[in-house]
Amino acid sequence: MSYTASVVGASGFTGGELLRLLDGHPEFEVAQATSRSYENKTVGSVHPNLRGMSLRFSSPEELDSVDVLFACTPHGVTMDHIDAFREAADTVVDLSADFRLNREEQYDEWYDGHDRPELLSESEYALPELNRENLAGADLIASGGCNATAAILGLKPLFDADILSGDEQIVVDVKVGSSEGGAGGGEASSHAERSGVVRPYAPTGHRHEAEIEEYLGTQVSFTAHAVDMTRGASATCHVYPNGPVSKGDLWQAYRGSYEEEPFVRLVAGGSGVYRYPEPKAVAGSNFAEVGFEVDPRNKRLVVFSAIDNMMKGSAGQAVHAANIALGLEETAGLEFTGMHPVGAP
Amino acid sequence: MSYTASVVGASGFTGGELLRLLDGHPEFEVAQATSRSYENKTVGSVHPNLRGMSLRFSSPEELDSVDVLFACTPHGVTMDHIDAFREAADTVVDLSADFRLNREEQYDEWYDGHDRPELLSESEYALPELNRENLAGADLIASGGCNATAAILGLKPLFDADILSGDEQIVVDVKVGSSEGGAGGGEASSHAERSGVVRPYAPTGHRHEAEIEEYLGTQVSFTAHAVDMTRGASATCHVYPNGPVSKGDLWQAYRGSYEEEPFVRLVAGGSGVYRYPEPKAVAGSNFAEVGFEVDPRNKRLVVFSAIDNMMKGSAGQAVHAANIALGLEETAGLEFTGMHPVGAP
Amino acid sequence: MSYTASVVGASGFTGGELLRLLDGHPEFEVAQATSRSYENKTVGSVHPNLRGMSLRFSSPEELDSVDVLFACTPHGVTMDHIDAFREAADTVVDLSADFRLNREEQYDEWYDGHDRPELLSESEYALPELNRENLAGADLIASGGCNATAAILGLKPLFDADILSGDEQIVVDVKVGSSEGGAGGGEASSHAERSGVVRPYAPTGHRHEAEIEEYLGTQVSFTAHAVDMTRGASATCHVYPNGPVSKGDLWQAYRGSYEEEPFVRLVAGGSGVYRYPEPKAVAGSNFAEVGFEVDPRNKRLVVFSAIDNMMKGSAGQAVHAANIALGLEETAGLEFTGMHPVGAP
Amino acid sequence: MSYTASVVGASGFTGGELLRLLDGHPEFEVAQATSRSYENKTVGSVHPNLRGMSLRFSSPEELDSVDVLFACTPHGVTMDHIDAFREAADTVVDLSADFRLNREEQYDEWYDGHDRPELLSESEYALPELNRENLAGADLIASGGCNATAAILGLKPLFDADILSGDEQIVVDVKVGSSEGGAGGGEASSHAERSGVVRPYAPTGHRHEAEIEEYLGTQVSFTAHAVDMTRGASATCHVYPNGPVSKGDLWQAYRGSYEEEPFVRLVAGGSGVYRYPEPKAVAGSNFAEVGFEVDPRNKRLVVFSAIDNMMKGSAGQAVHAANIALGLEETAGLEFTGMHPVGAP
Repeated sequence: MSYTASVVGASGFTGGELLRLLDGHPEFEVAQATSRSYENKTVGSVHPNLRGMSLRFSSPEELDSVDVLFACTPHGVTMDHIDAFREAADTVVDLSADFRLNREEQYDEWYDGHDRPELLSESEYALPELNRENLAGADLIASGGCNATAAILGLKPLFDADILSGDEQIVVDVKVGSSEGGAGGGEASSHAERSGVVRPYAPTGHRHEAEIEEYLGTQVSFTAHAVDMTRGASATCHVYPNGPVSKGDLWQAYRGSYEEEPFVRLVAGGSGVYRYPEPKAVAGSNFAEVGFEVDPRNKRLVVFSAIDNMMKGSAGQAVHAANIALGLEETAGLEFTGMHPVGAP
Repeated sequence: MSYTASVVGASGFTGGELLRLLDGHPEFEVAQATSRSYENKTVGSVHPNLRGMSLRFSSPEELDSVDVLFACTPHGVTMDHIDAFREAADTVVDLSADFRLNREEQYDEWYDGHDRPELLSESEYALPELNRENLAGADLIASGGCNATAAILGLKPLFDADILSGDEQIVVDVKVGSSEGGAGGGEASSHAERSGVVRPYAPTGHRHEAEIEEYLGTQVSFTAHAVDMTRGASATCHVYPNGPVSKGDLWQAYRGSYEEEPFVRLVAGGSGVYRYPEPKAVAGSNFAEVGFEVDPRNKRLVVFSAIDNMMKGSAGQAVHAANIALGLEETAGLEFTGMHPVGAP
Repeated sequence: MSYTASVVGASGFTGGELLRLLDGHPEFEVAQATSRSYENKTVGSVHPNLRGMSLRFSSPEELDSVDVLFACTPHGVTMDHIDAFREAADTVVDLSADFRLNREEQYDEWYDGHDRPELLSESEYALPELNRENLAGADLIASGGCNATAAILGLKPLFDADILSGDEQIVVDVKVGSSEGGAGGGEASSHAERSGVVRPYAPTGHRHEAEIEEYLGTQVSFTAHAVDMTRGASATCHVYPNGPVSKGDLWQAYRGSYEEEPFVRLVAGGSGVYRYPEPKAVAGSNFAEVGFEVDPRNKRLVVFSAIDNMMKGSAGQAVHAANIALGLEETAGLEFTGMHPVGAP
Repeated sequence: MSYTASVVGASGFTGGELLRLLDGHPEFEVAQATSRSYENKTVGSVHPNLRGMSLRFSSPEELDSVDVLFACTPHGVTMDHIDAFREAADTVVDLSADFRLNREEQYDEWYDGHDRPELLSESEYALPELNRENLAGADLIASGGCNATAAILGLKPLFDADILSGDEQIVVDVKVGSSEGGAGGGEASSHAERSGVVRPYAPTGHRHEAEIEEYLGTQVSFTAHAVDMTRGASATCHVYPNGPVSKGDLWQAYRGSYEEEPFVRLVAGGSGVYRYPEPKAVAGSNFAEVGFEVDPRNKRLVVFSAIDNMMKGSAGQAVHAANIALGLEETAGLEFTGMHPVGAP
């Protein structure tokens, strides 16, 4: 083990997923997992898959000195505690929205403002496919939103290859699992009310629009639907390029962007059961699947992307970014390839 | 009982649903249920909810004379047997696609042509919200496609109220249950492969585009996704009107179109768990839920509609149309209001 | 409409189901639906399937005079308010456990005692298959527990036919849906934690043992498991009769007990997909399916029963009992036969 | 990589799971994956999680020489091809039932006889918790049945500790996921019919009774139910010991049997959401959870065990046994600990 790590807010879903990844990571040792509510309980008492770890939750008030601190706290907490976090660790990876956007005005518009706007320019967005070069050596990393990640991965090659210019209408229709809501939850997230749904939520004005706009340079029309799975986010992007685009053009564009990427699989047609991206095909893994189709009748492109929101959409992305920041093997600790068959993971 | 009815192709999913509805209908007596594969077996041996019916499947070769014949056969069968069907019954309600479109060229483009194109102009599209006046007294009725029904119900008021003119880009992003694929099915529809999916299928070029175009007079960009439910179809339409539209305008438009409709519920915001249309809220019923939201940032309207594809999307719609054709109470036999709670129906 | 009815505690799951049934019942008019939390809101704001009802929740403090009052309140409430309930209505049907058992000692052992033990002998257990003769004219009716109902329906014919004598070991292994836990609910019933489970709960000492013992005269070893459905309860009873029993003996016993019962279907083998009782085959209906198999190798009988816990297990049973109490057609308002196909209802 | 391995019958579910495990195993290199139906296709075209492997299916007629051959073929195939398999590999691990039982008569009773009965005594049952000492150096290994594995793991400590003697009535009530049926499948396993079920199958006379009897030395009354998950098997054993047993006795017995076992977790009460064994808590992992409760009222013990049928119930168990046979680290390639949260995996 070369590095020590702590997870702040470790009793939540992303916190648990980070503990799992760090515990199985060849270069990290988990020094601390904090939780106010579960202090002194074993991490396995909350996360049953971690029953083999002897680690107990400790108070978030007393942070150990570590190499990397992962903050899995709700929006607003990291900006309040950022000084303590940076004092405790050389590298801070924040999984909340607190350092994802670059300008204070954006926080005024989309969130409830920002307490430490002067730090916004210091943070690096964690998505390696977008920002790999700046992550090396970064000491404040903002892990992206799961829906934004899915949308950005789907759309980015169209901008890289100049198929889109940024002034087109782009519809991003997203389907997500219940873990996006986090642990706990009220009546709407109870099993009886939540199971079997195709439930529109945040039909307009979803905050991830801001992230997508920030990193793709284009406005998108975003709508999310809750569907009956626990993990997973699937984005279908409907775009209307100004000129004609062939399937070959798309293959070239997507291969150009992702050929060397260790965690992106292109899935666009072919035979068999799995012809397009599906969240269940990447469940538990850090892979993203991206695919596309041309609709000549409507002069439309349809782009599909699928991730596990707990992995590529949060904890896995955070570890991937930390690997790059520290100069480790990018895929270290993220080798799990998913399962087949798998139900609604 | 005032009328006799038969169901041809009664061992399939829509056939079973029709048997259920007709058996509980105050004005219909089921005279015959045909099935080549299950001849002489009780209808309850295939449809477990119908174990209380003593009816047995009979051969499709020998059709009784009835008042109304419902054809639940695969596409292409009704056009081949239409003379026999019309000889057996005064009124034929076809649940396949064989008489949904009006022109032979459309069948050449979207299907494998049509054997009896001269009859296309005689059939009436079953959707009462669109075509009530022509259904009275109709003797050849074409029940619409489930996805087309969901999309049309969502979009129609925008055209009725001149909010859309027909030249706008319209994205129809649909999520459907596994019963759409019908009984039987291969590897892709096996539980292990199909459960938990968000699976794009027919990402472009879906045949229901033709129906929507025919009855709304506009082209739409349609994409369907299989999700983890058995019954249900949910359509999210993303549209960009040319001028500004307020939520009040939308309420006025949708109330104008649907205020008097017995089977359409408007659900657009408010408090509680169920703020927008959801398939599970109408499961087992003939209701459609329709709702909407304005996205001023993107000058977009988002319209949601949800139906039970087995009911409003096929068998319920067929009975509704037959009720109108025969001059019966429109809601006769269709009073079931759905359940709460209900899982993934 | 011949009778007025009120539902006390109408915002819960069983309350909503009762509203649905009474609203569709030819002989009942719903006069009042009480809810402390949702006072003045429409019943459709909580139960989306009831959006067509204009009824609003009213305060439980002001009870209208009605013919029948259905109490859907948590255990302990009815015994506190029984005088007010009986003053408001000629017939009180309680869906809680407050009047299911007959002796105060049972409440001391299984619950937290009883405030009005002198009334215990006045109440009638609602299960018509067990107690039809005493329900006619009854004015205090105790609707049974869902798990107890499933178990009793499965085992009763074995006692009726003297196949069991009451001193055998009887294992009752039950699988239930999430609606048994009622509306609301904490972390364990959140979708992310609850979906996909096979979760033992109340592995021993379940209170429904008391009911089964009371009405079958035998002790049972009861264990319940939460599984991934919203509605439904399935009981598998493993029993070891003292002498040899053939499948023919079982058919004779079960037909003897249930041949005339309007809501019990025997399902025991045969061909097709549905060979034994299944909750999903009765979803939304008041039917119980009961079936059995002989295990000669182990000298065991295996008995299966399946109900919709919201219907035959609570609201449907309550209406059935009220129908009998008032001398109405037994099946009035309970004609819905379930659906095929249906997912996890 | 120290060893080469091949998977025969690699397009099925257990074959795919083995490919996944062997591909991630530090000591194995996959030399060959055979499939008659998918010859020349990439393994990723069938198993979407394996899209990163460049391996293609090859003909089962031409077997490479390898160190270990894993046979994932249907029952009856391995006994026919055992000579070819053993010629191709020093160690053969069979995942079918062909070499699980020890005597020809058992195959006559429970299966369709056996073609190579003389080899039955040569094979070793793969369950390390039962048979570790004989697996070291074994060259013919029979991986056990998933349901039998779950039952044996739950009951074994009761025999080890003399709490049961073998003449008690033992009910084993099992709930399993759809992957147990294997890939493909007909109408009963279609999503529309299979989802949401609590479906009794093989209610009596299940073949795994033979395995349990063989390895525990006791007859059991076994009944299986299909429930709505893809992976997972959960066994609830209801047993009636002859004398009194306390919870402390049980802890002692289970700790005695499993304290040193790397893949067994004891979960018996406590706080939190996960108090007893659950399949979803071990999904994707090789862990078994085992727990228990005392029912003094009925003089009963209730024992719960949960596994992932694709892992501890087949492919994971096979790799575990191979690790022991070859003298490798027992947990090599099996470190994945499962996920939290996870839906219906």
